[in-house]
Amino acid sequence: MLSYKAPLRDMRFVRDELLGFPALFASLPGCEEFTPDLVDAILGEAARFCEDVLAPLYRSGDEEGCTWTPEGVRTPAGFREAYAQYVEGGWAALSTPPEYGGQGLPPSMGLFVEDMMGTANWAWTMYPGLSHGATRTLKVHGTDEQKQTYLRHLVSGEWTGTMCLTEAHAGSDLGMLRTRAEPHADGSYRITGTKIFISAGDHDMAANIVHIVLARLPDAPPGTKGISLFLVPKKLPQADGTLVPNSVSCGSIEHKMGINASATCVMNFDAATGFLIGEPNRGLNHMFTFMNAARLGTAMQGLAAAELSFQGALAYARERLQGRSLSGPKHASGPADPLIVHPNIRRMLLTQKAYAEGSRAFLYWLCQLVDIADKSADAAERKRAEDLMALLTPVAKAFVTEAGYEAANLGVQVFGGHGYVREHGMEQIVRDTRIALIYEGTSAIQALDLLGRKIMGSGGELLRGFAAIVEEFCAQNAGREDMAPLVAALTATGKRLEGLTMHVAGVAMKNPDEADAAAFEYLMFMGYFVLGFMWARMARTALDALAGGTGEADFYSAKVETARFYFQRIMPRTESLALCVEAGGATLMALPEAHFAL
Amino acid sequence: MLSYKAPLRDMRFVRDELLGFPALFASLPGCEEFTPDLVDAILGEAARFCEDVLAPLYRSGDEEGCTWTPEGVRTPAGFREAYAQYVEGGWAALSTPPEYGGQGLPPSMGLFVEDMMGTANWAWTMYPGLSHGATRTLKVHGTDEQKQTYLRHLVSGEWTGTMCLTEAHAGSDLGMLRTRAEPHADGSYRITGTKIFISAGDHDMAANIVHIVLARLPDAPPGTKGISLFLVPKKLPQADGTLVPNSVSCGSIEHKMGINASATCVMNFDAATGFLIGEPNRGLNHMFTFMNAARLGTAMQGLAAAELSFQGALAYARERLQGRSLSGPKHASGPADPLIVHPNIRRMLLTQKAYAEGSRAFLYWLCQLVDIADKSADAAERKRAEDLMALLTPVAKAFVTEAGYEAANLGVQVFGGHGYVREHGMEQIVRDTRIALIYEGTSAIQALDLLGRKIMGSGGELLRGFAAIVEEFCAQNAGREDMAPLVAALTATGKRLEGLTMHVAGVAMKNPDEADAAAFEYLMFMGYFVLGFMWARMARTALDALAGGTGEADFYSAKVETARFYFQRIMPRTESLALCVEAGGATLMALPEAHFAL
Repeated sequence: MLSYKAPLRDMRFVRDELLGFPALFASLPGCEEFTPDLVDAILGEAARFCEDVLAPLYRSGDEEGCTWTPEGVRTPAGFREAYAQYVEGGWAALSTPPEYGGQGLPPSMGLFVEDMMGTANWAWTMYPGLSHGATRTLKVHGTDEQKQTYLRHLVSGEWTGTMCLTEAHAGSDLGMLRTRAEPHADGSYRITGTKIFISAGDHDMAANIVHIVLARLPDAPPGTKGISLFLVPKKLPQADGTLVPNSVSCGSIEHKMGINASATCVMNFDAATGFLIGEPNRGLNHMFTFMNAARLGTAMQGLAAAELSFQGALAYARERLQGRSLSGPKHASGPADPLIVHPNIRRMLLTQKAYAEGSRAFLYWLCQLVDIADKSADAAERKRAEDLMALLTPVAKAFVTEAGYEAANLGVQVFGGHGYVREHGMEQIVRDTRIALIYEGTSAIQALDLLGRKIMGSGGELLRGFAAIVEEFCAQNAGREDMAPLVAALTATGKRLEGLTMHVAGVAMKNPDEADAAAFEYLMFMGYFVLGFMWARMARTALDALAGGTGEADFYSAKVETARFYFQRIMPRTESLALCVEAGGATLMALPEAHFAL
Repeated sequence: MLSYKAPLRDMRFVRDELLGFPALFASLPGCEEFTPDLVDAILGEAARFCEDVLAPLYRSGDEEGCTWTPEGVRTPAGFREAYAQYVEGGWAALSTPPEYGGQGLPPSMGLFVEDMMGTANWAWTMYPGLSHGATRTLKVHGTDEQKQTYLRHLVSGEWTGTMCLTEAHAGSDLGMLRTRAEPHADGSYRITGTKIFISAGDHDMAANIVHIVLARLPDAPPGTKGISLFLVPKKLPQADGTLVPNSVSCGSIEHKMGINASATCVMNFDAATGFLIGEPNRGLNHMFTFMNAARLGTAMQGLAAAELSFQGALAYARERLQGRSLSGPKHASGPADPLIVHPNIRRMLLTQKAYAEGSRAFLYWLCQLVDIADKSADAAERKRAEDLMALLTPVAKAFVTEAGYEAANLGVQVFGGHGYVREHGMEQIVRDTRIALIYEGTSAIQALDLLGRKIMGSGGELLRGFAAIVEEFCAQNAGREDMAPLVAALTATGKRLEGLTMHVAGVAMKNPDEADAAAFEYLMFMGYFVLGFMWARMARTALDALAGGTGEADFYSAKVETARFYFQRIMPRTESLALCVEAGGATLMALPEAHFAL
């Protein structure tokens, strides 16, 4: 049976030693008190909750799944109680401002906790996770009354939230959505329409659910410019504090490949009472204000998959005796050697490890940028952080989930036939993670966002900003013999990326189809490059620790060896991606639609 | 809802136009009567059975799954009836010799039918599919009495068979198996032990089940050299034709990621009566005689996944309206363009198409080699076919299933969120196909077989035999302008493979761990190369048809365009694989076992 052990040492390495969070917290207004010791204490407490409460519900939640009833959706056994403990422990309120009852920790702290919760039990974590979108929407765009009535309950976790975007015919193309909002004499609206794929749309864990719904006003222009944002509660709060049912109901739940314990709802709004959030017809713009945060949250699922699958596969590879090392028995006294002696098993484990630890470094760096963008007193620093986030978030969302899915599949492969059997939990990670490549914008959508909007849209400026950071790192370490192979590879790959970008931008300017033809492989190239940068940084930090004398030589040596593995056995994938990008889109467009099958 | 349409035109292209099956059948003793018209008629009939009977049970079989009862395993609704139709139609007996009641068609014909059955419903196809191993074992190694008593019933399909290899502690490493066979005074044996992962180990579709069981005689040497083969029927046939239960029972069935309609059984043999097959302690050698056929059968699952997922994704991409083409609306009168206008959607569809049609060409070529090895009167030709099969079968098993799994995942991605929902069937292809990378020898086991046993074990001779065929093709087409880019790429990749092989063989000779460190990526390189060879051959055949004047210009043009796509957008993957192989295994072995996580 799969268990979860929070990698607190690795998290601390990334936070304190690699990214310098202690100095950052000391410099951000309102964060000064979060010393490394306090941070460790909070995260240690969160780790226990994840290991002891959430992880044991991982398999049972998948087997039982959610149940639709006419009275509402029932979550699997134990989910309700775990949520109550979560609210009780104050975890819901961790990173929200004190003026709404929050504990005011920096956003990164909430994300670190979510990393652990999501790894222990992704499906469960989606319920509180979905609240963040609603919370952010109301915080930024809500009226004072909306904040007073709804935000405090969301912050405490007593109520949860959803984002109701997708309709049956409108997924990636939200411009086609049809849900209507009719103005009512009292200033409210009557919302009518059906939304699908609404995660946490209904459940039995909270007293009320606050839906943020995309809909059209009667006179709205067509397409994406005619979409407004509405707050539609499951139950309408009355002046006396009681809750009266609204015309909102869950029509059915989807039967899915995975995340069976997360209710994916068809939500029917039948002239439901709703309230406009922000300006009319500006709904999509309002949502874009926290798009990066939502995508970072989904990227975490890739990290979660890589970490959990690595933990499972490593334990198995150490225990399972099967075959002998080709270079002679390594545990001659036993009936066979453990799997971990085999180079190909090690290749799979190291790939998982490189993805898990590399993705953690990458995503925690983005968490740091979120903190700066949210809290820094320096406008120029905020802008720098926002620019970097704008560039790197689509890379994180698509690349880290693609890598996490690969890692999850490697975990099954390490287990062999036993990996295919449900009881071990390894195949569940594959099933659960598969959706991460789709929701919150598919990998292809992220790739177009990166190449079209972020890189070409900024005239290359956002990319140059990032490239300068990498170049500075390479320059700083140019003279170090122990870093030479990594710096050389990073420099060469950076140059390749620069040339590739020039090339793609050139052809895409003449023919926009060339952008979409190149975008996915371009994004994957960039993902491997960013991860390589993180591994080079980790190697330098670890080499410095080793050079300085340390009681944890094994820990730091493992970092250095994993970095070397990454650069030798993973980074070369960039070359094929570059060749595919350079091949262009002509062969994609040559076949007439009708001739794909004859 | 996913449906299946047998690609009869494409199958005919591969058989008759690409591979020249008509001339082959005309030349093989006993196959002369199988003219193209007769073959088309037989396969057309099989296609109807697959489309009308098997495909409709694909989703329902997955949802219902198998049920264990104390009386035996119950298969999903409709499975029994479909099997009765299969036996009734004579499909079970298609490719078996007339002396045992078979219809005597060449082996390839049985495999063509299995391609369609497996694509329509892989889980169902496993029941008759598992009989082949038992049938072949008895045909080659059985006594006359065993053949008389068991083989005729297996051939007719009245009874089915299994292969009982794996035990809980002995998977890839069969040398560790413990099941015992005690001799009995009457010349039979008492078999005692527990086997796991036994596909079709128990079910309600046939009157009896013939288990082929690997077990140890009392005085057997340890390891793989002490394994014998036993026939252990579920029910013992009596002289009067009645069946008396044997001490064989299904203890439980596995709950799996996919192929839920295929019973994966724990089989208990409790002093069950069994009969020795072939010579004592030669069980593994006996099994190796049909290892290639079994692996080819499993490779078909990769082809099946690519084909079925492509059919589903293509239909959806043509129907689903979402977004507008970046180069301007393509269906301006509609509310949006169909997905298929988007270059990235086309990239995914073309990858599926290139895998499905390329894998079909590859595997049907192997089917042809099976025919030659089985039927040719010319010993030298048989030897040539066997050598090629020995080399290419592990490539087919590992590469085609890896490619099929990628294709299945792309199918989900084309569907977006809808692909994650079970009712559409797209995610089921992913779940069902995942096991193909594991059973019948994992991809890593195939890779070691290819690199260690086949390539290094033959001193490079088997590879040179294949390379000569590719070089001859390149020489034949060297002067053709329309083939120039493909021939150039094929030649360059062939040279790269040659150099890579020399390199790997060199380092592996000094350090055997280097073989396993390189094997997986080496095999994948070879897989892309073989598929490239098949696509170049298909392009040449199609270009010739176009040059000769044809009423099917669209069909042949699509082949040419898909070949170009493959060489531009898929074939470049070989470069990264080569770089990873060349990087060697040092970084895989550097980390001590205890330091993978700290």
